[in-house]
Amino acid sequence: MSLDKNVQEINKKVAFLKSKSGSHSPSIDTFLQEIPEIKIDVDACFLSNPYATDLFLTYLKNDLIDTNKLRDVLEYYPPQNYAVADYISKAIGTPAKNIFVTNGAIEAIQAVLHNFLAKKICVVIPTFSSYYEFIKPHQEVVYYPLTKENDFKIVVNDYIAFVEQHKPDTIVLINPNNPNGGYLSKQDIFDVVEKLSWVKNIIIDESFIHFAYEDDELSQITAEELMHKFENIIIIKSMSKDFGIAGIRAGYAIMNEKRIGQLLSNGYLWNVSGLANYFFKIYCQPEFIRQYNIVRKKYIMNTQMFLSQLAAIEKIKIYPSKANFALIELLEPGITSFDFCMNLLVNYGVYVRDCSDKIGLNGEFIRVASRSFEDNLTIIDAIKNAVK
Amino acid sequence: MSLDKNVQEINKKVAFLKSKSGSHSPSIDTFLQEIPEIKIDVDACFLSNPYATDLFLTYLKNDLIDTNKLRDVLEYYPPQNYAVADYISKAIGTPAKNIFVTNGAIEAIQAVLHNFLAKKICVVIPTFSSYYEFIKPHQEVVYYPLTKENDFKIVVNDYIAFVEQHKPDTIVLINPNNPNGGYLSKQDIFDVVEKLSWVKNIIIDESFIHFAYEDDELSQITAEELMHKFENIIIIKSMSKDFGIAGIRAGYAIMNEKRIGQLLSNGYLWNVSGLANYFFKIYCQPEFIRQYNIVRKKYIMNTQMFLSQLAAIEKIKIYPSKANFALIELLEPGITSFDFCMNLLVNYGVYVRDCSDKIGLNGEFIRVASRSFEDNLTIIDAIKNAVK
Repeated sequence: MSLDKNVQEINKKVAFLKSKSGSHSPSIDTFLQEIPEIKIDVDACFLSNPYATDLFLTYLKNDLIDTNKLRDVLEYYPPQNYAVADYISKAIGTPAKNIFVTNGAIEAIQAVLHNFLAKKICVVIPTFSSYYEFIKPHQEVVYYPLTKENDFKIVVNDYIAFVEQHKPDTIVLINPNNPNGGYLSKQDIFDVVEKLSWVKNIIIDESFIHFAYEDDELSQITAEELMHKFENIIIIKSMSKDFGIAGIRAGYAIMNEKRIGQLLSNGYLWNVSGLANYFFKIYCQPEFIRQYNIVRKKYIMNTQMFLSQLAAIEKIKIYPSKANFALIELLEPGITSFDFCMNLLVNYGVYVRDCSDKIGLNGEFIRVASRSFEDNLTIIDAIKNAVK
Repeated sequence: MSLDKNVQEINKKVAFLKSKSGSHSPSIDTFLQEIPEIKIDVDACFLSNPYATDLFLTYLKNDLIDTNKLRDVLEYYPPQNYAVADYISKAIGTPAKNIFVTNGAIEAIQAVLHNFLAKKICVVIPTFSSYYEFIKPHQEVVYYPLTKENDFKIVVNDYIAFVEQHKPDTIVLINPNNPNGGYLSKQDIFDVVEKLSWVKNIIIDESFIHFAYEDDELSQITAEELMHKFENIIIIKSMSKDFGIAGIRAGYAIMNEKRIGQLLSNGYLWNVSGLANYFFKIYCQPEFIRQYNIVRKKYIMNTQMFLSQLAAIEKIKIYPSKANFALIELLEPGITSFDFCMNLLVNYGVYVRDCSDKIGLNGEFIRVASRSFEDNLTIIDAIKNAVK
């Protein structure tokens, strides 16, 4: 078989896998199983800090594997939801009654939408698709479109006017936003929440906030404190990206205690696995957090360098990002994002996110994640060669 | 502090922990953390096959730890629900479209009750409490009481008449039942389903079915095939008990494809962790299942011996069980189940389930799990001494 035929075959298989996995990339596990002839050197679909994974694995090895305590974590029932919230409370200084622990942030998103969304949700697009895919048939979505002209950044007053016009009962702000990384400052978020405090549910998804910064020390940012002032605030926290542990499925949401009481009164009994419970235990150890902040800052600095290098490449446009990824527009006429991604994958072993299924994007877009320093060099070289 | 004062202190702490954990035992992890002065030698609350845990750990060590592949399992997103259903399909010979993979059986129970229960559910009591605790305020529960006189066994015709009288839209049969282990033969289950086929949702919870048997070869039993004949059948499968991996949170439900389509259309995207995904991969390896059946039968034989030994102890009554536990009534006048459990825990290091919070039990009852051969000897000795 010629190389071209081979590529065509792989293209077909990838297209089939993508069609099965809806508006998300097939997992790398599914990929390797279904198309073993593809060799993925760098998974730049995957939005997580690899240095944080290293740190977690060091703890896991010392605490569980070398001590033979892994068995207890896998054999026994994990603690109930409220008991895990207790540890997290110590780590973040928020009362346990305001913490809803989940099987990844995605479970928090599902729980919030299925239980608190009434009739109408306002979603900023492009976005993470579950925010409109998880709604029920009788519910309505209104889309606030980000525009190329504004570099896909929310214009605060315009957004507020849009929400006031459409009167949704629920709004969602992912900050920084996925898939473009656009960031609203903490002050902007406070302004939005203050002016829209009549909205029943204000969801702030901070899945990527550990990669944003407002000062030279790259200090951690969060809008968690808003929950104490406004009882309609729901903050969603994913541990997958910042701590590099997507396979463990750990997340939580911060919200008013009445809502949490409602959720826990008839569900979510043992939704935290033994390993997620172990993660939350180390999450409340100051020494772990101290070490984590070092690898978080190292990764932010890598990422900022990576974004600058991407910006210097011709024939593509990088949109401003304070997350650990960039939305890239392909400027060469005639090239499609799917073909570009396939080229990167088959010829360079670099797997990036084709954004052709994202609603709210007009043009050919891909999303590229920052990985380790070395992997980022591979990604940059691959893209440089692919645009030639 | 005298021993008695010490025991009183511990009693208080245990009672407090129990009050916080609702109608379930506090996890062993919570116990050890909150009451470190207690030394638990045998956790006989915990209903799982320890030999299956050994087997799983051997696979995990060979496949993931010794090969350094554990990182991939913890770092990357696991496959989506439909992709995991594909493996399970190969293991159990049921189409993937009929398999809903879950974060433990408890997530399947919650999903089924929250999405398919309309107004009224019939629950056999005593039972696993989530079947009535997970219902919403506008829904009604009717309780079909098992009786001491009938050894807590369902009388099929009587049960059918009860359901016909109360006309619930949903019924639940746990087989064998928790907390007593009462077993309905496969033929009995078929008869019930045939006669009650007008009920909208018939839930059959097979969490403990791997410990039941109907022939001398101790062959595995399941009512899964009913799903092909009756579209109202929902079979719940927990992997926690039979495979000894409660900490991993792995389960699934088998049901009509329309229902699964409804559930997956707006949720349950990445609810299976990397380790649960790994478990389901080995679950479809015939060699793993061959080895598993050996430890399953070994454990059944241990358990049957354990039940006979319990039956021989004076001042307690054991009810018939085909599960991996026994419901025990304390016959000595004046003794409470709580005091008896505390005595076993503090003086013998044996943690058993106080059933005083179980609705539908009139008297003093405890539930004792079968563990390893050696642990069962410890449990028997402790109970023998405690009843003196």
